[in-house]
Amino acid sequence: MYEIALIGAGRIGRIHAGNVAAEPRLRLSHVVDPVDAAAREVAAATGAAVATLDAVLADPAVHGVIIASATDTHLDYTTRAIAAGKAVFCEKPIDLDLTRARGAADRLGGAGVPLLLGFNRRFDPHFRALQARLGAGAMGSLETLHIISHDPAPPPIAYVKVSGGLFKDMAIHDFDMARWLLGEEPVAVFAAASCLVDPAIGEVGDVDTARIFLRTASGKLCVISNTRRSGYGYDQRIEAFCSGGLIRAGNVRETTVECWGEAGAAADPLQNFFLDRYADAYRAEMTHFADMLAGAPAAVGYADGIAALVLAEAAGRSAAEGAVVTL
Amino acid sequence: MYEIALIGAGRIGRIHAGNVAAEPRLRLSHVVDPVDAAAREVAAATGAAVATLDAVLADPAVHGVIIASATDTHLDYTTRAIAAGKAVFCEKPIDLDLTRARGAADRLGGAGVPLLLGFNRRFDPHFRALQARLGAGAMGSLETLHIISHDPAPPPIAYVKVSGGLFKDMAIHDFDMARWLLGEEPVAVFAAASCLVDPAIGEVGDVDTARIFLRTASGKLCVISNTRRSGYGYDQRIEAFCSGGLIRAGNVRETTVECWGEAGAAADPLQNFFLDRYADAYRAEMTHFADMLAGAPAAVGYADGIAALVLAEAAGRSAAEGAVVTL
Amino acid sequence: MYEIALIGAGRIGRIHAGNVAAEPRLRLSHVVDPVDAAAREVAAATGAAVATLDAVLADPAVHGVIIASATDTHLDYTTRAIAAGKAVFCEKPIDLDLTRARGAADRLGGAGVPLLLGFNRRFDPHFRALQARLGAGAMGSLETLHIISHDPAPPPIAYVKVSGGLFKDMAIHDFDMARWLLGEEPVAVFAAASCLVDPAIGEVGDVDTARIFLRTASGKLCVISNTRRSGYGYDQRIEAFCSGGLIRAGNVRETTVECWGEAGAAADPLQNFFLDRYADAYRAEMTHFADMLAGAPAAVGYADGIAALVLAEAAGRSAAEGAVVTL
Amino acid sequence: MYEIALIGAGRIGRIHAGNVAAEPRLRLSHVVDPVDAAAREVAAATGAAVATLDAVLADPAVHGVIIASATDTHLDYTTRAIAAGKAVFCEKPIDLDLTRARGAADRLGGAGVPLLLGFNRRFDPHFRALQARLGAGAMGSLETLHIISHDPAPPPIAYVKVSGGLFKDMAIHDFDMARWLLGEEPVAVFAAASCLVDPAIGEVGDVDTARIFLRTASGKLCVISNTRRSGYGYDQRIEAFCSGGLIRAGNVRETTVECWGEAGAAADPLQNFFLDRYADAYRAEMTHFADMLAGAPAAVGYADGIAALVLAEAAGRSAAEGAVVTL
Repeated sequence: MYEIALIGAGRIGRIHAGNVAAEPRLRLSHVVDPVDAAAREVAAATGAAVATLDAVLADPAVHGVIIASATDTHLDYTTRAIAAGKAVFCEKPIDLDLTRARGAADRLGGAGVPLLLGFNRRFDPHFRALQARLGAGAMGSLETLHIISHDPAPPPIAYVKVSGGLFKDMAIHDFDMARWLLGEEPVAVFAAASCLVDPAIGEVGDVDTARIFLRTASGKLCVISNTRRSGYGYDQRIEAFCSGGLIRAGNVRETTVECWGEAGAAADPLQNFFLDRYADAYRAEMTHFADMLAGAPAAVGYADGIAALVLAEAAGRSAAEGAVVTL
Repeated sequence: MYEIALIGAGRIGRIHAGNVAAEPRLRLSHVVDPVDAAAREVAAATGAAVATLDAVLADPAVHGVIIASATDTHLDYTTRAIAAGKAVFCEKPIDLDLTRARGAADRLGGAGVPLLLGFNRRFDPHFRALQARLGAGAMGSLETLHIISHDPAPPPIAYVKVSGGLFKDMAIHDFDMARWLLGEEPVAVFAAASCLVDPAIGEVGDVDTARIFLRTASGKLCVISNTRRSGYGYDQRIEAFCSGGLIRAGNVRETTVECWGEAGAAADPLQNFFLDRYADAYRAEMTHFADMLAGAPAAVGYADGIAALVLAEAAGRSAAEGAVVTL
Repeated sequence: MYEIALIGAGRIGRIHAGNVAAEPRLRLSHVVDPVDAAAREVAAATGAAVATLDAVLADPAVHGVIIASATDTHLDYTTRAIAAGKAVFCEKPIDLDLTRARGAADRLGGAGVPLLLGFNRRFDPHFRALQARLGAGAMGSLETLHIISHDPAPPPIAYVKVSGGLFKDMAIHDFDMARWLLGEEPVAVFAAASCLVDPAIGEVGDVDTARIFLRTASGKLCVISNTRRSGYGYDQRIEAFCSGGLIRAGNVRETTVECWGEAGAAADPLQNFFLDRYADAYRAEMTHFADMLAGAPAAVGYADGIAALVLAEAAGRSAAEGAVVTL
Repeated sequence: MYEIALIGAGRIGRIHAGNVAAEPRLRLSHVVDPVDAAAREVAAATGAAVATLDAVLADPAVHGVIIASATDTHLDYTTRAIAAGKAVFCEKPIDLDLTRARGAADRLGGAGVPLLLGFNRRFDPHFRALQARLGAGAMGSLETLHIISHDPAPPPIAYVKVSGGLFKDMAIHDFDMARWLLGEEPVAVFAAASCLVDPAIGEVGDVDTARIFLRTASGKLCVISNTRRSGYGYDQRIEAFCSGGLIRAGNVRETTVECWGEAGAAADPLQNFFLDRYADAYRAEMTHFADMLAGAPAAVGYADGIAALVLAEAAGRSAAEGAVVTL
């Protein structure tokens, strides 16, 4: 039984707290949050104690730390926790600033550093099944890849302002998926972006709609489609075009119910909320963190965070300049 | 090039006339119809001559006759055309009266009699593909069979009155499909029927909703589902449950277009009209009739008509008496 | 927080134990099982104590009892637990013998008796969504109902022998679904059954394949399809044909992954195991039990168990006699 | 009844000949082909006369001309036929050379010139239904567009050599669809291309895999996906992402048959051959040509051919230079 401290008792922190409770090898021992009421609430529901970060890092009984606090604390807290000898599960992104993130390389970048970066989609059962078949060569070798990742509706402008922008906040997941599935690093990036959903997003200097193109050294092509508002739920699809055919993962509907009438057949809506769509992924992520505490290497870590951030910066530059960015 | 006479220039007759025109081996030479204007119209559109049945049967140039006239003329016209040495393509049913139909056995029942009975569904590409895989044992041996056959909307009461009733008019197609796919004759029939769609149908002594059970000597089970009004188009599905899995044929939509919105994903309606849904089947049926003129045996003939009629009578009796009818 | 005792630490008992642990209002306090090792294992995993049934029933701290022991103990344990003032969640069936089950009517049949009978499918989110739309008249009023319920593979013969037979063991769920969805009691039952899957099932006097027909007083028709072996996973589908169209609930696949190749598009298999397919239903069932402890009436109880058993007996008699059974 | 001459009795010419025969307002009067046997064969099957182009153009009885000859004759024949006062249905492309094609502007570019350019997909019932709903604002206003157009297998190298290359030969259809659906002209093009399918295609200077980005003045984004070999049939899909949701048109399968087994559910393959997939479109195109002869304006003409060619050239340049091309 490994004792785990949760840093950040907000929405995603509570999801992780629930998954710690459901994982037999883990026990939530401490909750840290600057908002005392939030920390107390999670603590009460789980039997954990409210604590400070310093106390947690100084406590030899704590084996692992989950960092689900504000984005601008991720890098600092991760570095301190690793220095204190704790295994870390840090929510993405490691940081919004590439230079700063890279500056942590000698403390976080090593193979033996027990750092799991929260790219939750790698743990989604649908995408894992797709990746497994791709890896097994079920339809031959991968040639081109399409990733569709459309949010149901845009976040509040207050969030957009501090999000790092569409490429670092939203597309970052897709860059990680692309790297994972392509099995090669992209060497060229082109991005086209517009503000079509909400002019207010444009006014704070961001975009809400983008199409991103990646090419690898061997000539594999990847297209990523992002929009902040689909109008029809959370659209999360992947198509991997291979030499022998196509492997695809589709959307998840709320139920299998359909109504057939004169106007046609109406299927139930897509799952609308990312916490529902990726509930299984969050669970599997926590299982993996328990595996790591038992000695397994992290499935996705610091280097992956840096690589996705590099692509996000390149995409942003490409969209701004209207030109291909070579890496 | 075989010369073909069409007897009956109504709705289905015109479909057959068009398919004769499109089949390179056939030429429509004559059209016969008691309504002179109808005959003239089809003749004008096809280059055929208007004629009488007697003249057609006496004309040695006519190779084949398509009987698409009123149901109560089918048996008489077929018998006369066969006697005159013509190949016959007769619309179903051969007759509504089993005793009368059976009375023609020595004139129509022989293996060499060139009589094609218009059970169009045997020629539908979807059901043919299902039957071919079933026959090839793609999923093992057949155990149970579900046939769903729901009309979009009930016919006019005037038609219901002369239709022979749901079992002989509508379920008759499904009895033929069941025999074709089961590969064995049913030995027991149970039918339950209600009048749920339109009380006027009940007032003329018919039913509009039925579920029919068939059992073969070896224990295979078949369920047929009929209703005169689906509310969502022409529902024509078959599921063949086999020892190794399921083979199914689904519905055909008008287009592949879908609209995804907040309320879910709306697919286009099912094809609504039987002449659209089975357009390919009618074409294939005519190709088969041309094959017959060139010497091929009929894929479905007199004996099949009798067998389906036997099942329809048994189902009607079962529904009336609330008891299983053994054959 | 309500204290719950689990009677029966087998496969389904462990599922319930896990769901008690995940429900914030419930705490598993005791585990009872004649196999001491089984009881100890569940107790160790959950922090509950190993106990005897007598001790549990005598303990005033215990609010509710989950009866997941052998079928022939259900009625006795339920009666005793109710007598002891405990709320009971009893796995189906209440008993395999209708006369004996009916004999408990005055002790168990009252409206205020806190007895939840484990017809899990009523809690499945797909079927609940279907039922909700049906109840809301989304497609008009219900006319006919098709329930497909096919197991992936037959159980061991040892189980078949004590199962009560296909109608009481397997179709019983579908009888409950039929009653729930029809909104009327069936007044006539017809069943046809065969032994097509495994002759050994026939040798112990059971069948493995059945089609069952129900009719209500108002003329609604229902068809239930059962087989002990589908060959393609756990096939659980419902189609509700209404005056304005169709409401249907489909199967659940393991993932959304598809492979498209020359031979066609291969979708992932259906969920194969009932504990996977109905995992959400078991969770929702436990939530409902917690609601009951807080005062809510049972969604499904003794009277439903009796009614389903009546239909199962009727179906068995109909299949044996080849005749309709009127209720 | 309009008399029609067919120029070019090859594969696509024969399709058009069949559709002329099936269209009641049209009659195929002449067939022209440098290969005498080909012309004779089509003439024999249709009752048309074999003729020369000069004779056809000089014959006042000929109302319309279908140009289905070699690509390098399209522009010349079209210009001559228009000069001779004939309505023209010319297969795409109007020419492979943009400068040469533009040189015909004063003879072919006018609004009154009866020239139908054979962009068959505009007549496909699936894409027409999508376009109709888009035009009606069924899901709000269009924002982004995805077009997938993958051939089943690459053409012979001999064809690749004279095809004009992937962008002018294959993507040209998609450029026309994009313009038709976007309702605005693209102002920027970016294309990335690889030779991943067959090195022999690369050796003759072409590519076999491409992803193309278009942007319109108002910021709408379009992605076109092309490959010469899918491995799973003819993949022709469109997704139109709108302000209120998604409208999509999917693939067409050979039949609706599915086989469900332990490994999952296998649907029938996609229609593999473009003449099958677009058979309805070719028929509708001919109906439209008959409409034009009766006075309707061409749905797609010279200006559309030029505009698509401009995009193809821009895409080729973009792919070669690795840079965005602004129009």
